[in-house]
Amino acid sequence: MNKNTKVNAAILIIGNEILSGRTQDTNTSTLATWLNSIGVKVNEVRVIADIEKTIIDTINILRNQNDYVFTTGGLGPTHDDITAESISKAFGIKYQIHKEAFKILEAYYKPGEFNEGRQRMVWMPEKAELILNPTSGAPGFSVENVFCLPGVPSIMKSMLGGLKNRIVGGEPILSHTISLRTVESEIAESLTKIQDENKDVEIGSYPFFQAGKLGVSIVLRSEKKSKIESCNSQILEFISKKKIEVVDR
Amino acid sequence: MNKNTKVNAAILIIGNEILSGRTQDTNTSTLATWLNSIGVKVNEVRVIADIEKTIIDTINILRNQNDYVFTTGGLGPTHDDITAESISKAFGIKYQIHKEAFKILEAYYKPGEFNEGRQRMVWMPEKAELILNPTSGAPGFSVENVFCLPGVPSIMKSMLGGLKNRIVGGEPILSHTISLRTVESEIAESLTKIQDENKDVEIGSYPFFQAGKLGVSIVLRSEKKSKIESCNSQILEFISKKKIEVVDR
Repeated sequence: MNKNTKVNAAILIIGNEILSGRTQDTNTSTLATWLNSIGVKVNEVRVIADIEKTIIDTINILRNQNDYVFTTGGLGPTHDDITAESISKAFGIKYQIHKEAFKILEAYYKPGEFNEGRQRMVWMPEKAELILNPTSGAPGFSVENVFCLPGVPSIMKSMLGGLKNRIVGGEPILSHTISLRTVESEIAESLTKIQDENKDVEIGSYPFFQAGKLGVSIVLRSEKKSKIESCNSQILEFISKKKIEVVDR
Repeated sequence: MNKNTKVNAAILIIGNEILSGRTQDTNTSTLATWLNSIGVKVNEVRVIADIEKTIIDTINILRNQNDYVFTTGGLGPTHDDITAESISKAFGIKYQIHKEAFKILEAYYKPGEFNEGRQRMVWMPEKAELILNPTSGAPGFSVENVFCLPGVPSIMKSMLGGLKNRIVGGEPILSHTISLRTVESEIAESLTKIQDENKDVEIGSYPFFQAGKLGVSIVLRSEKKSKIESCNSQILEFISKKKIEVVDR
């Protein structure tokens, strides 16, 4: 396996509403699924509060440890939206009006509606590159390897399409799932052996409950289709010997 | 506000299935809501992979920075369940069979069913205190301020009741929501003023879409009911002056 083809990312969810339990985060799953599809592996997710020092410190750790960092939240016009200013401070660069963003929002709103509150959304780090927003006008932005997206899930999701050419992924991570009518302890030993013999396939085992019945999904993940196929055959072989029912494969 | 009454926690979600986007995490929201109700504020959430070194390093950072750490995931019988062994290493203590857990599972399973795979679930850090599992037998455990729970949401949730007397929270964090038929930029300036004058109330502003209409929820959070009430009155005053429709308060 060529280590050079691995590209990784961290996701940083910024927002008190997730930490209080008030809001169920779904941006992690949306971003992770999309990143996987373009060959970027998510190493880590963090959820932090709307506190400037916390954002600065966390950004500076994550941007040095990962090829890419994606943040969501804190880009709106209210007092608790401090992502853009915090990112400027993390990079030690100016926080200023982004001329192109200003033009976009000036054209987006009706005359007179581009008020002071809304103008707050065009303040960005110097040299920020815009991430266009097909849903609600206000753009996100990137600085070096840090990409800042809004927190509202539908808006965030709509902006990913415009990012494709700016993220250079490695080989896409392929995955294959085998669902079994069994419990984990029945397959644990055999699965350990197969994992030991297939170091470059990530084998996950996840119990599920479906229509009142217990089951286990085995998930195989690798950049190499052939490795997954070989690992899959080994699993189906022991499953067949143990006479375990395959629900889906 | 008495700083000594503040008790905080970190949540650590352990599992490749969340990082790949395959599984939508809901444990964060369940834990955060429960912790808030018993006066524990969640400072931070991290999601990390099933990698021993990552678990050890992260646990050692989080347990020193927070009053409590709650982990979910990695307690099952398969090769990718490495939480208990990693916690032992993080604390530098022995990883061994927990006698009480052994007895519990021996009694839980039918004769002959408590096989080698299942016995893996009673290996825990030395002196671990059990967290009983009313759903599926296998207990979680705590070591000092680190509480380890399983990843399956329904099982995890069923174990929280048994933890109540072992977590000493501060004053419960109260919250009040005012939902408005407006957009954030209309209220941003007034809200900033109110936040400046009410430093000990955390004021969050969250746009929403409901039945095709835009709105904003303002969420006030504080340990003091009187502070929330005073802040609420100030908000309703400017809302009334601006003739903004209150959807819910």
